[in-house]
Amino acid sequence: MTETTRIIGIDPGLRRCGWGVIESTGNRLAFIACGTVTPPIDLPLAERLSLLNAGLRDLIDEYGPDEAAVEETFVNKGARSALTLGQARGVALMTPASMGVRVEEYAANLVKKSVVGTGHADKAQIQMMIGILLPSAKVAGADAADALAIAICHAHHRVHRQRLVQA
Amino acid sequence: MTETTRIIGIDPGLRRCGWGVIESTGNRLAFIACGTVTPPIDLPLAERLSLLNAGLRDLIDEYGPDEAAVEETFVNKGARSALTLGQARGVALMTPASMGVRVEEYAANLVKKSVVGTGHADKAQIQMMIGILLPSAKVAGADAADALAIAICHAHHRVHRQRLVQA
Repeated sequence: MTETTRIIGIDPGLRRCGWGVIESTGNRLAFIACGTVTPPIDLPLAERLSLLNAGLRDLIDEYGPDEAAVEETFVNKGARSALTLGQARGVALMTPASMGVRVEEYAANLVKKSVVGTGHADKAQIQMMIGILLPSAKVAGADAADALAIAICHAHHRVHRQRLVQA
Repeated sequence: MTETTRIIGIDPGLRRCGWGVIESTGNRLAFIACGTVTPPIDLPLAERLSLLNAGLRDLIDEYGPDEAAVEETFVNKGARSALTLGQARGVALMTPASMGVRVEEYAANLVKKSVVGTGHADKAQIQMMIGILLPSAKVAGADAADALAIAICHAHHRVHRQRLVQA
């Protein structure tokens, strides 16, 4: 019998943090749930980060993922944006790890390549491929689609790693 | 009777996160404790951030601060360093907030000005002034001294704010 692994993918962001949960059984993928955590932007930074942490904790409690995958952020907008994004990313990486869920990181272009076949796919292409790879997915927005793509990328790579170990 | 407020200052960092706890009663300051949280650098990033979170949680449980103060990081080393520092800073801001402790942020030059009198003080000047302002402090290293300086900066500014409110 092939083992089923439940994976949560996280696309970190302070305003909109996408998340998506899938199950991976051998080469088969199944959609479980997806959405976006959106801490109110009018609160102090520490409280926004605390609400992001609480939102991700609730999701991990509710869906019980075995493993988590987080996108390695590509930084191209200067140091100030990188600092802001880093703060949300720190919470996104820390939260599953603090609950005993193993976290893997994947570069953005590897995520795109895993889902669309090229490292330069745009958001519309990713959403279209999510609809093909996870036909039952009800995807609300680009951040949730990105998070599902990150989870799919992890599902592909963990199977590949297992084959390498078994070979 | 003047109220006593216990403050934890945090100097965020992934390799070395300084912390310092003081008590502020009117204009008087008292040293409680200080140190450095140092998650092992050979672990995956998510686990290092999780250990930083756990270390700060333990300190907040042990010392029960009423308020927290975190340095607003000055970013001058490019986007990649800013992202790394942001990740640690996100956890440092989030952890007290998630435990119900109010967090204030202070710019690095305001912290220096509050403690040394100028915004361009070096680490040796800060450590010397900590020795004068908190004579009983046993300061282990520059990161712990910086964290005490952040706590002192908050103590000064919260008293000033209270006077403004009472005037």
